[in-house]
Amino acid sequence: MNELQKKDLQYIWHPCSQMKDYEDFPPIVIERGKGPYLIDVEGNSYLDAVSSWWVNLFGHSNERINQALKRQLEKLEHVIFANFSHEPAIELAERIVQITPPGLNKVFFADNGSSAVEAALKLSFQYHQQTGNAKKTKFVAITDAYHGETLGSLSVGDIDLYSKIYKPLLLQTYKAKGPDCYRCPYGNERDTCSAECFEHMEKLAGKKHEEICGVIIEPLIQCAAGMKIYPPVYLKKLRKLCDKYDIHFIADEIAVGFGRTGKMFACEHAGVSPDIMCLSKGITAGYLPLSLVVVTDEIYDAFYCEYTELKAFLHSHSYTGNPLACAAACETLNIFEEENVLEKNKEKSKLISDIVRDAFDDHPYVGEFRQLGMVGALELVEDKETGKGFDWKKRVGYQIYKIAVKKGVLLRPLGNVIYFMPPYVVEEKDIRFMVKIACQSINEYFGL
Amino acid sequence: MNELQKKDLQYIWHPCSQMKDYEDFPPIVIERGKGPYLIDVEGNSYLDAVSSWWVNLFGHSNERINQALKRQLEKLEHVIFANFSHEPAIELAERIVQITPPGLNKVFFADNGSSAVEAALKLSFQYHQQTGNAKKTKFVAITDAYHGETLGSLSVGDIDLYSKIYKPLLLQTYKAKGPDCYRCPYGNERDTCSAECFEHMEKLAGKKHEEICGVIIEPLIQCAAGMKIYPPVYLKKLRKLCDKYDIHFIADEIAVGFGRTGKMFACEHAGVSPDIMCLSKGITAGYLPLSLVVVTDEIYDAFYCEYTELKAFLHSHSYTGNPLACAAACETLNIFEEENVLEKNKEKSKLISDIVRDAFDDHPYVGEFRQLGMVGALELVEDKETGKGFDWKKRVGYQIYKIAVKKGVLLRPLGNVIYFMPPYVVEEKDIRFMVKIACQSINEYFGL
Ligand SMILES: Cc1ncc(COP(=O)(O)O)c(C=O)c1O
Ligand SMILES: Cc1ncc(COP(=O)(O)O)c(C=O)c1O
Repeated sequence: MNELQKKDLQYIWHPCSQMKDYEDFPPIVIERGKGPYLIDVEGNSYLDAVSSWWVNLFGHSNERINQALKRQLEKLEHVIFANFSHEPAIELAERIVQITPPGLNKVFFADNGSSAVEAALKLSFQYHQQTGNAKKTKFVAITDAYHGETLGSLSVGDIDLYSKIYKPLLLQTYKAKGPDCYRCPYGNERDTCSAECFEHMEKLAGKKHEEICGVIIEPLIQCAAGMKIYPPVYLKKLRKLCDKYDIHFIADEIAVGFGRTGKMFACEHAGVSPDIMCLSKGITAGYLPLSLVVVTDEIYDAFYCEYTELKAFLHSHSYTGNPLACAAACETLNIFEEENVLEKNKEKSKLISDIVRDAFDDHPYVGEFRQLGMVGALELVEDKETGKGFDWKKRVGYQIYKIAVKKGVLLRPLGNVIYFMPPYVVEEKDIRFMVKIACQSINEYFGL
Repeated sequence: MNELQKKDLQYIWHPCSQMKDYEDFPPIVIERGKGPYLIDVEGNSYLDAVSSWWVNLFGHSNERINQALKRQLEKLEHVIFANFSHEPAIELAERIVQITPPGLNKVFFADNGSSAVEAALKLSFQYHQQTGNAKKTKFVAITDAYHGETLGSLSVGDIDLYSKIYKPLLLQTYKAKGPDCYRCPYGNERDTCSAECFEHMEKLAGKKHEEICGVIIEPLIQCAAGMKIYPPVYLKKLRKLCDKYDIHFIADEIAVGFGRTGKMFACEHAGVSPDIMCLSKGITAGYLPLSLVVVTDEIYDAFYCEYTELKAFLHSHSYTGNPLACAAACETLNIFEEENVLEKNKEKSKLISDIVRDAFDDHPYVGEFRQLGMVGALELVEDKETGKGFDWKKRVGYQIYKIAVKKGVLLRPLGNVIYFMPPYVVEEKDIRFMVKIACQSINEYFGL
């Protein structure tokens, strides 16, 4: 361990970590980044195959975004966002309304993903209170959902690892059994089914709609659950159901927005407009915390009245609408427009698909390779016939992670799912390297 | 309204705002900042007397912090903070441990204030679950508390305006009647009392301690409640009580930390160490969202074990430990050290006190002027004898705000409390201007 690592462990409690694990896997101290690579203080480089928790789009230390931030620094770093405003926020809001699905016309700002989810839940709840539906006080999510770690967002999540111990602190919510395409109980295929599994949501809403404010969902990919991919038809059915029962469709596009799935927003695959959309992560191309909650006029209007009626939405965060983050976000949108990103990503997605399939075809422990846009995932299983997974206590993914990082690729699997979610600037050689190391590491672990 | 203002209102839903109010008070579009001043797109300037929601310390577009950020941009904008690390975070954590009260030795990172509070609550709860006190599941706050807007942090808040409508979504918490020094029910004075009002907390803890995880408190100033200032002795008593009953003392120094009260951290006035301290806002001198939760070894150790025991703290945010924000924070600490900030602020606090007292001595509507360090507040009342406040529906503070902003000072009162909480770079002429405009605006409103 070098001095920095020792200091790190003396003072820092890392997120989402059992710190005891760091005893034999000390923190890797990164000094600089370049494109999809991170370089540590000892000069070792790591291909960032997870885009640093799904945030980075255009590489580390991106020249264009650096310049945009330097320009903004010369003008204004921050200003209170109540009664005050600034050009980067106005430009961003206008452009977001233009590119998000039709009907989403007003932009509320926050600063991290969880807080956007919290604001969305509060908005939905308050909307119903103020439009004569005071009985609507409950939220629905699907099984295996992930929406963040603050108590409200955790309450609509369904991953025990993160939430179980906090049960007594969590809001009571409903969980509808969601899609499970790899192990589809109906024996269907993801590409051809009609989301028969939607029956669970239908049943729940049928019974409980009078108390339901909104359904929150990660469109098309449940990322934290292990990159579980499901088809757009599920979202189409959800849109109809929500219309039928006056329930808000809350799309949490925090992880899948900004091109990850091949379209700018995942909802576009289904051609649906949610009532509320949460955005964060990639919005600043991985530079700075910023989040948005984009809503319909109908929702906005339900809060618009004389102050003394006390119907305003009084949510705020100190750094709401931070001009630096907004400037990074505007430049992110410029890059999308000017560099033909979505088009180029099509080729890259195809490359990932081809190279992964080549490497893992007939691999004895790969149960499924699934992919959508710039997200590809290998689910490792003990038994390919039955789809039986490995005992979590073996920490298969974690062991493979440790092997791969030594070989220069940052994979950070989710349980037994090894996934590829690289910055969009990866080139063919990077993709080949990423997949090769993943393959070598998996095989080394299994002694193949 | 200029074109930018029109666009703003077309697309943006501002925080903590009734948007209808913007019809006759359109958003002021700031183009740049310089020192304590904000300059709008039409060239008007505004003295930022509220430090843009209590975050700015060293002025807008501060040259030193700009340079620090530009240097960091050349190296690394962001990296995942699980298993990975970077020098700005390590340096920041080390220095924070050195300057916070003794015993606070481990630093957990998050990105906004509310999330730090959420993490603190989760940590406290989980600590007790994992140390044989599973019955401890409840939190205590004091009346008029404010700790943020996410559902968990809102649950420990006590300001109806922000939380009442969300009641059905909030966690059940206990509220102990807190200090109310301006209208002290015991007839005592803030400077000489022994916090007789602590009896409420004592009584509550005496009865309920077996179910209480922690008490969360804003040390010395309840800012959102209207800059309610109370004496250090209250915190001393709280420390003893928490020790007695194995309850965590959670100090929310998000607004008062980093020199606001005259000392680096407000807890220092009382000479107490909390078990958990939340920091944000001023930590980046008002540049970027970043927050820290600083805890004792005892808490850290209760989570440290083999992974498979499942006792880790799995909280995380995508932008946890953001290197740009950490670089701004390190430079903030450099400025404190090298520019003798706390010492210089003593003179500035004295100036604020003298100038305000001069201007408002015997003012017919000022019930109290209270001050601590770089926070001064005037509470406007209808009747000075009885201390009777103005009907909230008159929106006295808001009307005065609108008058003052036209005259070039951004005051943004809290209810009927007009406060001064300027960046530390204000000079005598700025203070005189700020107080003069406040006085003129108040008098104009009252027709004096
Ligand atoms: C004491 C206190 N705690 C928590 C918060 C919440 O912080 P944030 O606005 O960054 O979520 C605030 C913000 O005003 C505060 O004053
Ligand atoms: C779908 C989804 N929602 C919400 C969040 C929470 O965002 P943050 O980590 O910024 O709080 C995440 C983060 O991983 C996410 O993937």
